[in-house]
Amino acid sequence: MIEPQRTPATSVLKVSAHSNPNSVAGALAGVLRERASAELQAVGAGATNQAVKAIAIARSYLSASSIDLVCVPEFTDVEIEGNVRTAIRLLVERRLIPAAVPVSPPAIP
Amino acid sequence: MIEPQRTPATSVLKVSAHSNPNSVAGALAGVLRERASAELQAVGAGATNQAVKAIAIARSYLSASSIDLVCVPEFTDVEIEGNVRTAIRLLVERRLIPAAVPVSPPAIP
Repeated sequence: MIEPQRTPATSVLKVSAHSNPNSVAGALAGVLRERASAELQAVGAGATNQAVKAIAIARSYLSASSIDLVCVPEFTDVEIEGNVRTAIRLLVERRLIPAAVPVSPPAIP
Repeated sequence: MIEPQRTPATSVLKVSAHSNPNSVAGALAGVLRERASAELQAVGAGATNQAVKAIAIARSYLSASSIDLVCVPEFTDVEIEGNVRTAIRLLVERRLIPAAVPVSPPAIP
């Protein structure tokens, strides 16, 4: 169960430490081709890390569509099995890619 | 040593898994009162988690100044003790707070 949200509801993707960042990125990119924003929700360091990696990967997926992403992190409380846990909520929003600042490609080995 | 950066150089704050998010947030807020952007760099899940928490906390520190923050994550390579590691680079940028969307108060992690 999720506490009352502070910003308008969007599509929520729950990310765990075991989530595949590429899969989350694909889902995120799919949502953001259709909508202006999406939300990732993560509990714990491992989950937050996968969520951030997914956003970085989704940026490269969307760059061909001239879409870049920004994210706005905030704390939120979620109830898991009767216990209240602090989660990280990452609101992800689209923005147009400025002409002079191309999205970087995935890291080059 | 840091690989060539893909976006304009800003103030870089290196975050570790042992960094205090409140301290990083204070430093980040200080930079972003003076500059339009700053960069957090983190290697590993624990460090990335602390960096994201610091951004969430910095948002509350800056809300009294009507400044909100967005972040743009990307991968970058850093050299640590002769080994190349993949780091997460979080470019943090200022934006004005929309009147109808107040920044949430900080939750205690």
